[in-house]
Amino acid sequence: MTVDDEVLAARVVLGWVVEPGNRELYHLVAEAGPVEALAKVVAGKAPKGLAAAAAARLRHHQPEKVASQLLARAKRLGVRIVVPESEEWPSCLDDLASISVPTGNRADRDTYPPHAIWVRGDDRLDELAARSVAIVGARDCTDYGSHLAADFAYGLAMHGWTVISGGAYGIDAAAHRGCLAAQGRTVAVLAGGVDQPYPPSNTGLFEHVARSGLVISEWPPESAPHRHRFIIRNRVIAALARGTVLVEAALRSGARNTIRRTKELGRPAMVVPGRATSEQSAGCHAELRLEGDHRARLVTRLEHVLEEVGEIGVDLADQERGAERPQDTLDGPELQLFDAAPKRGALTPAEFAARAGVGLLEALAMLPSMALRGHLRMHPDGTYSLAPPVKNTV
Amino acid sequence: MTVDDEVLAARVVLGWVVEPGNRELYHLVAEAGPVEALAKVVAGKAPKGLAAAAAARLRHHQPEKVASQLLARAKRLGVRIVVPESEEWPSCLDDLASISVPTGNRADRDTYPPHAIWVRGDDRLDELAARSVAIVGARDCTDYGSHLAADFAYGLAMHGWTVISGGAYGIDAAAHRGCLAAQGRTVAVLAGGVDQPYPPSNTGLFEHVARSGLVISEWPPESAPHRHRFIIRNRVIAALARGTVLVEAALRSGARNTIRRTKELGRPAMVVPGRATSEQSAGCHAELRLEGDHRARLVTRLEHVLEEVGEIGVDLADQERGAERPQDTLDGPELQLFDAAPKRGALTPAEFAARAGVGLLEALAMLPSMALRGHLRMHPDGTYSLAPPVKNTV
Repeated sequence: MTVDDEVLAARVVLGWVVEPGNRELYHLVAEAGPVEALAKVVAGKAPKGLAAAAAARLRHHQPEKVASQLLARAKRLGVRIVVPESEEWPSCLDDLASISVPTGNRADRDTYPPHAIWVRGDDRLDELAARSVAIVGARDCTDYGSHLAADFAYGLAMHGWTVISGGAYGIDAAAHRGCLAAQGRTVAVLAGGVDQPYPPSNTGLFEHVARSGLVISEWPPESAPHRHRFIIRNRVIAALARGTVLVEAALRSGARNTIRRTKELGRPAMVVPGRATSEQSAGCHAELRLEGDHRARLVTRLEHVLEEVGEIGVDLADQERGAERPQDTLDGPELQLFDAAPKRGALTPAEFAARAGVGLLEALAMLPSMALRGHLRMHPDGTYSLAPPVKNTV
Repeated sequence: MTVDDEVLAARVVLGWVVEPGNRELYHLVAEAGPVEALAKVVAGKAPKGLAAAAAARLRHHQPEKVASQLLARAKRLGVRIVVPESEEWPSCLDDLASISVPTGNRADRDTYPPHAIWVRGDDRLDELAARSVAIVGARDCTDYGSHLAADFAYGLAMHGWTVISGGAYGIDAAAHRGCLAAQGRTVAVLAGGVDQPYPPSNTGLFEHVARSGLVISEWPPESAPHRHRFIIRNRVIAALARGTVLVEAALRSGARNTIRRTKELGRPAMVVPGRATSEQSAGCHAELRLEGDHRARLVTRLEHVLEEVGEIGVDLADQERGAERPQDTLDGPELQLFDAAPKRGALTPAEFAARAGVGLLEALAMLPSMALRGHLRMHPDGTYSLAPPVKNTV
């Protein structure tokens, strides 16, 4: 199955016409499809903010010409373009559509899925992503941090896991190198074009990564790695991987943003501690002090990481908790209530009772206990939803 | 108000006749009072295990003679005896009666309050305990650990807090010394008689502690610091302090037991992280990885400790959470339900509804949400109880 030429061209332009992650553009494409959505944007028939942003780029460029230039550039560089319509598209990226919080804060609004991923390397992106862990952290790391990042990456590679990181100095580079040292496959997610190695001194590393893994980006080749792009990029690292490990981070490190996205996605957010006195671990410790639904988990050994992301029977010895799904312990009306839970969204106890064919009093009595045991999640307004997947699910 | 001579003599013998913490003896005294309880034990009219254990010591000693000898010894050493009937008794020790889990495991059965505390030093034990933090950890610590323990202790002393620890090598000694360096008051809780400094090389430290704080023990003078006594002793450290900080601990360190007791008491359990690769922090990290009701909190700075144990307005700037009690946010039937919660034990929703004068349906709908917001605690069997006190209570 190949992607229709018109769709591919539209996706490529959609990924260029405004900065990635744009909320309005995502919704427009979801409603009208990529070709029609692009036509609307070009015609100025898009929500105001989006239309204005797009107009700034379209003023000097014909969309058709942009598409043919970008496609030609991909061919010349030996780079392929993966779009949501591609067989190779990692569906885990679509989860980004569910995390965005419609606040005034731009960084929180524009966390939607990419329209296109530019890929250097031979492996399939979806296959690598399906069994991958992200390792991120500070550029300005200590020897302790880079040693640990390389160690975790080496161990993950030895267990057949792909290591995803951002290609930066410090923790990122150590993670890529540790993975490569084990002949593993690693994915560098850049904040500029895949032909724009950044930092330039990591050029040799990126060549090595592309040979035994992938160098990818949402931005077309020749795009510069602008500062603001790193934070946009982080959501893709978090969304591609089954879980993210933060190794070292100062209080204001951008790597904390990747961990935040990981938590928002309901994926395992893992944090390595350091000395209480280390500035380079202060951001890690701040993450570990956060309370709430998606707390970060402290990890110090490879086994801890595998426990969070691994598949039982493949990565882990059978543990006390056994291999069955938690709901296997339910029966009777509790199982009926569990099966009545919608895939998305929450219901009131009365709605649950109605869907499940269980008495209201029974539902009111059972739902809290099911929430306490982790089968459902209870919300402050008295509604219940499925508990977010934490383990052993992508 | 002085303690009746007969009661004091009975308490002293009760604290000697079996190892401290004994469950049966606690219940016997609670029912019959110390004088009558001792008479029953001496007459062999106590539960079998207790009677047998007491008989082993009573075979070679007359209880009256033991009492007069111990009281004479206290006088000679300049040591006073604080018993539950004393004005100086720290009521926080009574909380130990609520944590014991009646399992076959001896260490878990015998965590009941002491019958007597032998005290060297001038300050009042109850006053020091009321504003105290325990700092505990490994004997075999690193320079990093002892540095941090001393730093925390110094800072606490500078803020007017007493530092409680166990007088051992390593973290304990560093904590006492850090407190003394700030002219603070520190309490060493020994696992043998207060005239039996252990380790002997800390004798100079204990002299210093007794001059500007207290050296205390549940065991009468001349008692040897037997190995098993350290774990019995730990519960007193946890119960005296408003919160406990674990600085460094190997996986099997006894200091983890003190943190466990702290959590069982519902007091803040604070843990300092270290490098992921440090054996001496492995126990700390294991504590931080535990999930559940009374999770440990990661702390790296004095402010974090004060935030857990401090009094708002005294130790902390007014923070967002404000100074009101959580239940101040309740009204109407929710407040009725809250007020209906028994001080001890749990009730079913139907019992709550009846006590509160609220409809059953209303109770079933409101109780889970009140539990979610932390006003009540929900149990797996569908009952509810008051949430354990966590902050700002001794």
